[in-house]
Amino acid sequence: MRPSSSPAEPAEPAEPAGSPPPGLFDEVLARGPVRAAVDDRAWLAALLTAEAGLAQAQAGLGMIPPAAATAIAAAAQPAQYDVGSLAVDAAGSGTPVLPLVTALRQRIDPALREYVHYRATSQDILDTAAMLVSRSALAVIRRDLETAAGHTATLARRHRNTAMAGRTLLQQAEPTTFGRKAAGWLVALRTALASLDRVASTGLAVQLGGAAGTLAGYQEAGPALLHAYAAELGLAEPVLPWHTDRTRVAELAGALATTAGAAAKIARDITLLAQSEVAEVAEAAGGPSSAMPHKRNPVAAVSALAAAGSAPGLAATIYAAMTQEHERAAGGWHTEWRPLRELLICTGSAVSWLDSCLAGLQVNDAALAANLASMLTTVALREPAEAHTAAAAALVD
Amino acid sequence: MRPSSSPAEPAEPAEPAGSPPPGLFDEVLARGPVRAAVDDRAWLAALLTAEAGLAQAQAGLGMIPPAAATAIAAAAQPAQYDVGSLAVDAAGSGTPVLPLVTALRQRIDPALREYVHYRATSQDILDTAAMLVSRSALAVIRRDLETAAGHTATLARRHRNTAMAGRTLLQQAEPTTFGRKAAGWLVALRTALASLDRVASTGLAVQLGGAAGTLAGYQEAGPALLHAYAAELGLAEPVLPWHTDRTRVAELAGALATTAGAAAKIARDITLLAQSEVAEVAEAAGGPSSAMPHKRNPVAAVSALAAAGSAPGLAATIYAAMTQEHERAAGGWHTEWRPLRELLICTGSAVSWLDSCLAGLQVNDAALAANLASMLTTVALREPAEAHTAAAAALVD
Amino acid sequence: MRPSSSPAEPAEPAEPAGSPPPGLFDEVLARGPVRAAVDDRAWLAALLTAEAGLAQAQAGLGMIPPAAATAIAAAAQPAQYDVGSLAVDAAGSGTPVLPLVTALRQRIDPALREYVHYRATSQDILDTAAMLVSRSALAVIRRDLETAAGHTATLARRHRNTAMAGRTLLQQAEPTTFGRKAAGWLVALRTALASLDRVASTGLAVQLGGAAGTLAGYQEAGPALLHAYAAELGLAEPVLPWHTDRTRVAELAGALATTAGAAAKIARDITLLAQSEVAEVAEAAGGPSSAMPHKRNPVAAVSALAAAGSAPGLAATIYAAMTQEHERAAGGWHTEWRPLRELLICTGSAVSWLDSCLAGLQVNDAALAANLASMLTTVALREPAEAHTAAAAALVD
Amino acid sequence: MRPSSSPAEPAEPAEPAGSPPPGLFDEVLARGPVRAAVDDRAWLAALLTAEAGLAQAQAGLGMIPPAAATAIAAAAQPAQYDVGSLAVDAAGSGTPVLPLVTALRQRIDPALREYVHYRATSQDILDTAAMLVSRSALAVIRRDLETAAGHTATLARRHRNTAMAGRTLLQQAEPTTFGRKAAGWLVALRTALASLDRVASTGLAVQLGGAAGTLAGYQEAGPALLHAYAAELGLAEPVLPWHTDRTRVAELAGALATTAGAAAKIARDITLLAQSEVAEVAEAAGGPSSAMPHKRNPVAAVSALAAAGSAPGLAATIYAAMTQEHERAAGGWHTEWRPLRELLICTGSAVSWLDSCLAGLQVNDAALAANLASMLTTVALREPAEAHTAAAAALVD
Repeated sequence: MRPSSSPAEPAEPAEPAGSPPPGLFDEVLARGPVRAAVDDRAWLAALLTAEAGLAQAQAGLGMIPPAAATAIAAAAQPAQYDVGSLAVDAAGSGTPVLPLVTALRQRIDPALREYVHYRATSQDILDTAAMLVSRSALAVIRRDLETAAGHTATLARRHRNTAMAGRTLLQQAEPTTFGRKAAGWLVALRTALASLDRVASTGLAVQLGGAAGTLAGYQEAGPALLHAYAAELGLAEPVLPWHTDRTRVAELAGALATTAGAAAKIARDITLLAQSEVAEVAEAAGGPSSAMPHKRNPVAAVSALAAAGSAPGLAATIYAAMTQEHERAAGGWHTEWRPLRELLICTGSAVSWLDSCLAGLQVNDAALAANLASMLTTVALREPAEAHTAAAAALVD
Repeated sequence: MRPSSSPAEPAEPAEPAGSPPPGLFDEVLARGPVRAAVDDRAWLAALLTAEAGLAQAQAGLGMIPPAAATAIAAAAQPAQYDVGSLAVDAAGSGTPVLPLVTALRQRIDPALREYVHYRATSQDILDTAAMLVSRSALAVIRRDLETAAGHTATLARRHRNTAMAGRTLLQQAEPTTFGRKAAGWLVALRTALASLDRVASTGLAVQLGGAAGTLAGYQEAGPALLHAYAAELGLAEPVLPWHTDRTRVAELAGALATTAGAAAKIARDITLLAQSEVAEVAEAAGGPSSAMPHKRNPVAAVSALAAAGSAPGLAATIYAAMTQEHERAAGGWHTEWRPLRELLICTGSAVSWLDSCLAGLQVNDAALAANLASMLTTVALREPAEAHTAAAAALVD
Repeated sequence: MRPSSSPAEPAEPAEPAGSPPPGLFDEVLARGPVRAAVDDRAWLAALLTAEAGLAQAQAGLGMIPPAAATAIAAAAQPAQYDVGSLAVDAAGSGTPVLPLVTALRQRIDPALREYVHYRATSQDILDTAAMLVSRSALAVIRRDLETAAGHTATLARRHRNTAMAGRTLLQQAEPTTFGRKAAGWLVALRTALASLDRVASTGLAVQLGGAAGTLAGYQEAGPALLHAYAAELGLAEPVLPWHTDRTRVAELAGALATTAGAAAKIARDITLLAQSEVAEVAEAAGGPSSAMPHKRNPVAAVSALAAAGSAPGLAATIYAAMTQEHERAAGGWHTEWRPLRELLICTGSAVSWLDSCLAGLQVNDAALAANLASMLTTVALREPAEAHTAAAAALVD
Repeated sequence: MRPSSSPAEPAEPAEPAGSPPPGLFDEVLARGPVRAAVDDRAWLAALLTAEAGLAQAQAGLGMIPPAAATAIAAAAQPAQYDVGSLAVDAAGSGTPVLPLVTALRQRIDPALREYVHYRATSQDILDTAAMLVSRSALAVIRRDLETAAGHTATLARRHRNTAMAGRTLLQQAEPTTFGRKAAGWLVALRTALASLDRVASTGLAVQLGGAAGTLAGYQEAGPALLHAYAAELGLAEPVLPWHTDRTRVAELAGALATTAGAAAKIARDITLLAQSEVAEVAEAAGGPSSAMPHKRNPVAAVSALAAAGSAPGLAATIYAAMTQEHERAAGGWHTEWRPLRELLICTGSAVSWLDSCLAGLQVNDAALAANLASMLTTVALREPAEAHTAAAAALVD
């Protein structure tokens, strides 16, 4: 499998200009750049990119006239298509690809129309578009994730020697440092980053196989076309068409659920540290309350938890949908579409909120010291507390 | 708990005029009337209905001036509010209620503004709106479910004596009748209907408690207000405010997941019966294919399966979110919003598709007979096949 | 559907004598009486009860000789069978019923052997046994649940006027009372109880239909046998055999997941209230730590959370397994067995631990007062705190 | 992170002698070598291996007397411990480690007892043991997976040119070959293998940190000890103790769920191909039926589906349990234990059954040809069918 990181010209979906207004809960649960990366306009752009890329690859191999590829690329402008109409027509065949192909054909010279979607099947285009959309989404998620990781690294450095009470089962237990705690967060985020990067670099592949996944329409040129298509879009080249082998979608889901879980752990810690009775941290911009103007809620951490809470169930849906029949599934494939989008959104939102939560997180040294002192009055430590915190500090380096 | 079925005037959310166009996958995975029942405009209407209903109940008890309730009702017109702006402002507090209250206040006489959202908390309004939205959604889901059940009843009657091969582990096993099979579908749908109806009649309750769920803002009149509020909206009156007791949301989720599962079982049977090699049924309007014009796909059954496939994971998310802290959760409550909406959508879509699938389902008597005959050549039945099918036919009555 | 509460003689599975030792994690995650209620010996007893009950019902209708029913009942002694051997032989057919029938036949007069499992199918017996096992498990779960509810009622009464800080988003918010908090717990547990009772009284039904679910083997006497069988075992009589209509299993799963969630909410509250920095409650018997002898961990609450955490995923598995093919599923039915058992165990364990946690829960009045006082210094309450807490206290009645 | 593949002497848990008899459903749902790899005896052995390995590493660094390590190793014989007693005593502290340490100490010279579990915390040992158990389980799962992959490779080669009907949405669509189908299975299994191997080689790490995860008990020698401990057990060395960073458990869960899904897809295909009406394949050893002696059920494929069906929900449980508080979780950690074991079991069982299913799978050339011929009478192929199947055959190389 060819890594997707070395395309000649990575054909990114055209950037949609002017975002639609957010939905009612979107600024809480579909926050940050991931929303635009996976919305209908991004999907439409990706579908058109997939069709144009296929035509380009086919022209390169002499399968269709160069003029057809040029015409298709020219017609593949998202702004010219109406998502609502495509959506309505999708009901007949079960996917929006067929109406999109019809609409695309109407926009080009009749003599060239037959070369649109040439010998491809709907799933070829939709799966390829799903990979393009996922690539864009992963790119923005990983950017926020890296920023968040940077914040934890800063906290780890800055609070290398800031002693505090370590807590097990929500009971004060032994001393640690704030730096050690932040370093633990950092390691989890780095694991998540590595997981996303692995999927992004080798897991996102073009789809092309024709109805039965045999590349039959392209005769002996099939494998070469698969290769050229992958190169054209900067996606990995699969060993075989993967219409009903959903392992790559499953690995994407797993990496996202792991990322959401890593973010949730940190957000949980922060909501606990921000409790009125603990008061060791506060968000830079805590949120107001409709009933209690005096409160400063850890809105970012709470929202990160809220978003991340959807990930496990969505990943389960994608795993369960892997049981896909024969050459195209009778349901399982379609099942993936909303959960995959939702999983990208909730993971991206969790990371975006985590980023906000950690940026400028206020660490209350006095509270840390006071809680630690309180603990030390009740704990008969076997070793001096200084040794404990020094050990924790050493772990940060 | 007072059943919600006996309100003086059930205050339904105002019907939104003119539906927005569907999203790219909506006609497949968010199909039928449920989409409009749970969309942002329905939510906005429900939030306003909740505020207006509260004011009405408070005015009835003399807590606020009647003029305030009148003014609030007049200002509670969804068309006057912009979802996008409310959504943007929601980020600060974590819910859209605070910006909505602000917007509502701006639309009424300054002297009466203090009576908007009088001594309520955001969750009071949002949870009440969620119940109103769920009520509307359940109403349309149950309507489609009843229609689908009617179709199965028709099939059970019509094919009472239509013998066919019964299949276990996907192997032909013993004779049954098509009527018996359809009767089994009917029983499952009736169980689902009963489950939805139970939730609709007693599980959907108003929420009112103020910040800490004590009804403290209303002094000794709190319980009377809770009662009046429930009557005003035609929802059940809870024993106590239920901000962090999410059992009623869980029961709603369970009824929906059960319904989706019942629909999926039928749709699976139909996709299997519609296989080329079995050919015992065909959908009245099978769908075309982009690559294979000759095929007649069971698009409705496939789409029902596709929609239903999301339900188990979404229900799990709602169950997992029940672990809500103290008087308001730090994440778990917000987590519910998207999964609850998604669960209503996917269940409603599955039922809507099932309805289409069953309406005019073509039963191929010749194929049924031929497959049965084929089975009887290889099966040494212990009793005459007629006895078997007669037993099955008798079960249909 | 006949309610299962009025059998002439409810044929409970014979009580297994002498429990096997617990597994390594069982006293934490499979705690209390539910473990024995669902273990292999309970299953074996239930399978034998199902066979004996069927024979009894058949003899009553003159289908088989009375002597056969007597002989089968005599041979249906769990102690005479070896679970391990049955299990090994189960691999061939996919269920342990076939080897059990073989073993049962070997224990009776050859002339009567044909009347064992007379014209039934494996799933008839296994599903009926699953219902018997579930009935036993629900009985012990509801007993612990009722005890736990009783504890919360006691706390609600005793602390009716014990003021404390109410907390939203883990921030101190407004005053409430400990009694109000406990009353909220009580309401959730009562909802769970009602849910379990509804399932226990109408959802648990005998299964009988023969291979294709037609009752064909019993000719015209099928429905009467179904009725008699249900009466014999004290289970509900289904409208039709439900081999692939799994709505009743789904409703059982939903009630269990709801119960686990209700328990988890309370346990979460207690772990939070027991934090070193909050110290408002302590378990009567907190647990020791291998590294920190000074700690008193809220082991019961933590263990309740640990057990309950498995419920959502298990319920999802059962919902997903509802998509069962034709007259017997090719996988989905078998899939239920372990998750259903696990779901009964984890819910029962959570409730058992909750019971221990609440029994003798120590409420620290001084800490409650101190935290409330601390809150009141920072909160500019719109009303006197007394009004708030009086409102909360009033909710408890 | 150091890969675990280069230990001097990989200290495998002692092989338990003589397996306990299977549980009632075990030969169906907990099949193959994975059951013994994760049972209580394997866990006990792994816990003892973890304690002995820690002592060995500590002795190597001069932290404890060499005699202590020798004595501990000598006492760490699983056969000397009673799981039931340890389990009973586990209830007090929430884990079986504390009672095991007590039991271990009783078996050695009082003067050396203090060196047992020297400055470790329960979670250090339990997590390390979980990694050892997972390593053993992954080893047997991958072995079966490789065998299964070998079977698919054989089918792909043997049936390279065996034309058959390709099916989409369960409708005959276009020609493919059996070899192409089998090659698709192979690719999915290889992806699963790569996923398991990645986790096995870098994801399974020792745990060591002491109560607060600071390595404080070991002063400045902590990192060296972590390194030596990892080398001793042949596990990866983590960057930091990972008590509440559960990303590595999540990645393990994801790899298992992906594997189960890949197995389920193949098993679904086989149950469909084995349908009476399709009859293109048959299992070498189909299973009998209690009611229908004539049937030959695809028991292995059905059982593979049955086992795999549990994986998505279990993975979701593990993802949801990642939200672990501070330095040790109040519930989330304990939650993992049963689901992780169950997930290993169900994945291993699915793979084991798949192996049986594929071994000697009978491919019915006549049925393949007949179904294809039937399809070609109704399909107006745009290209000769030979081209399609040639393309499919070419993909197999």
